[in-house]
Amino acid sequence: MFKLIELENGLENVQGFYCGATNVGMRTNPANSGSSDVDGDVAFIRSEVPCDVSAVFTSNTFQAAPLKHYQKYPKGFQTDFVLINAKNANAMTGEKGIEDIDNIMSTLSSKIPVLNPVMASTGVIGYRLPIDKITSAFDTLDFSASHSHKAARAIMTTDSFKKELAYRIELDSGKHFNIAAICKGAGMINPAMATMLCFITTDAAVPKEEMDALLLESTESSFNRISVDGDTSTNDTVLLLSNKKSKVYDKAAFQAVLSKIMFELAMMILKDGEGANKVVAFEVKGAKTLEEAKKASMALSNSLLVKTALFGEDPNWGRIASTIGASGIACDDSTLTIHYDDLLIYSNEFRELDKIREDKAYKIMKQESFKVTCDIGLGSASYISYGCDLSYEYVKINAEYRT
Amino acid sequence: MFKLIELENGLENVQGFYCGATNVGMRTNPANSGSSDVDGDVAFIRSEVPCDVSAVFTSNTFQAAPLKHYQKYPKGFQTDFVLINAKNANAMTGEKGIEDIDNIMSTLSSKIPVLNPVMASTGVIGYRLPIDKITSAFDTLDFSASHSHKAARAIMTTDSFKKELAYRIELDSGKHFNIAAICKGAGMINPAMATMLCFITTDAAVPKEEMDALLLESTESSFNRISVDGDTSTNDTVLLLSNKKSKVYDKAAFQAVLSKIMFELAMMILKDGEGANKVVAFEVKGAKTLEEAKKASMALSNSLLVKTALFGEDPNWGRIASTIGASGIACDDSTLTIHYDDLLIYSNEFRELDKIREDKAYKIMKQESFKVTCDIGLGSASYISYGCDLSYEYVKINAEYRT
Repeated sequence: MFKLIELENGLENVQGFYCGATNVGMRTNPANSGSSDVDGDVAFIRSEVPCDVSAVFTSNTFQAAPLKHYQKYPKGFQTDFVLINAKNANAMTGEKGIEDIDNIMSTLSSKIPVLNPVMASTGVIGYRLPIDKITSAFDTLDFSASHSHKAARAIMTTDSFKKELAYRIELDSGKHFNIAAICKGAGMINPAMATMLCFITTDAAVPKEEMDALLLESTESSFNRISVDGDTSTNDTVLLLSNKKSKVYDKAAFQAVLSKIMFELAMMILKDGEGANKVVAFEVKGAKTLEEAKKASMALSNSLLVKTALFGEDPNWGRIASTIGASGIACDDSTLTIHYDDLLIYSNEFRELDKIREDKAYKIMKQESFKVTCDIGLGSASYISYGCDLSYEYVKINAEYRT
Repeated sequence: MFKLIELENGLENVQGFYCGATNVGMRTNPANSGSSDVDGDVAFIRSEVPCDVSAVFTSNTFQAAPLKHYQKYPKGFQTDFVLINAKNANAMTGEKGIEDIDNIMSTLSSKIPVLNPVMASTGVIGYRLPIDKITSAFDTLDFSASHSHKAARAIMTTDSFKKELAYRIELDSGKHFNIAAICKGAGMINPAMATMLCFITTDAAVPKEEMDALLLESTESSFNRISVDGDTSTNDTVLLLSNKKSKVYDKAAFQAVLSKIMFELAMMILKDGEGANKVVAFEVKGAKTLEEAKKASMALSNSLLVKTALFGEDPNWGRIASTIGASGIACDDSTLTIHYDDLLIYSNEFRELDKIREDKAYKIMKQESFKVTCDIGLGSASYISYGCDLSYEYVKINAEYRT
């Protein structure tokens, strides 16, 4: 057992890490930068000592240059530096995009000693990085200070608020370690990861050989279960950096808190889903196989008709049923039941909504978050995914994104 | 060879068919009925003599009651009557929904002799048909008159214009036959058919044994290639009725014109896509397999990010490339090229859009329709699908649909 303490100031709580950000002028039109909370465009995370590092990258075939650059390091490499920029994805930039990163890192290493520096980018696809602008950041950044809020704000794109979390884990022995993270993401959010960057630092003495599996497992139960719009970006990156500074580790505690922090960040992304007002959990149970439960659950969190009905707060279970039927899984309208929270709104005995039940359903849909449970009634497999509504604002944000 | 003549007044041109519509008060709020063009809510198509009939239905597992009712007739049955209602899909209504149709048809047969009457419905899911209202139509409908415009208008839901076409096919022999159709559909439009009803009548002497294959083939190259929102309804129906009255038939001519009429109706649906302003063709060529070409093409016509970029008229080829990469097909950014109409906007040698090219791309995107061609450069398979942009109006229509 362990005691969990939530901390302020994100990454600043993890021993031996520095972080910060600056503004090099890549955000040419601050009014279109998503939010007044945004601040800066180049951020860094640095460790005093070499870190073990694990990463999960996008499933998009066209991985962006920083992802390819990372994967050129030998397996099991250590790093002490992560550079992050907004406004430019450095994606679809070919070999030149990777050379640009090498050039930037070469300038960096003339300023401070760095070991295998890695990069992460987010922004528009198809443009070369402005190298001079980005390297100008090295003249103003203080690499021995910690400003977690600044780093969290600088990596935002269409996000409307910064995403930053930190926990202290106190073990029964009285010893403790810390896990913290910053994250960005609001659109192009899709089951197979999301346009999102997430940087997790820890001073726990987690063995390198356990890190990959732990990160993958937590990604599957967090970022891989949310959908804003069903699109998968070229740049999705989740990085876990551990410098072992605390010399303390407990696998069960570390695993639980890593999963918790990633799930909470995933819910923040969904809450910040472009133009979204509601977070809805779609549980499909009673399916014949896990694969089918997942397929139907994901179909629900991705359906435009379901998403617009959520926005309209219309207790129209017909769109839920139709989406399950369209997903291609084994299902039968005589065994199916649908609940909104605890309210049964569809069953074989009970197909038409009476006024009382419709009013109750309407009240449930008014909430900021609720749960839709579809019991297929044919098996025992279940899966839960999380979606949001689709509003005018989504269209506005995405029609105007580049301008 | 044959001569093709486009005719006015749709179904009225096909010998031996009657059609019409009336208003029984199912549209409680005419202001929300999609369009001022809408008129009536119950329509019929009737033939003087028994017709051979072929049908293609939705791939949704939860087929609506009228689809199940149709499929209870023995294979190869003939019919002389189709009844169509708007505002209520009679879907997810169980056995009762089928009994309701039997009851309606029983009342009908007490008014006029009918042979194996079939029904088609469109509207909201989950409510029983108002039998008394629908059968009240039989008191006012004139079953021996032809009002094609009225029938085409009565079956509209969120459509903003009626969809009606007719062609006369004059063979070299001097003989002729006719094909005509009415159709509805504007949303829930998806590759695997769409929420659409389409009724095609012909007096061609097409042999029954050729009808199914011809209808399937034409559906594959028309309705199955368009996408408004990636959702597949419970009610999609394409019916082909042939009464052989002309005694004339030429397979090649019939096939060509059936395909043409269905493709043109599909483009009308897309043009009328809820809130849509543009129709865009997405051709994927140079793919390794047809399946992969289709997968990437469909991913493009379904992507929210692509659709909102079309609405914003943003020449952002990055979203096109990213969607292809996310589709999971074999692809490589060094062999990929992307064209908007004839303008090359992405290739390995040429990744960044210069101002001149961007201005040209912008002009192309301003058009009401244009073509995006993605050459994967790895094979010889190609596929083309058709999509539309996603506007504020789509969200408005679908958030408010039921109210």
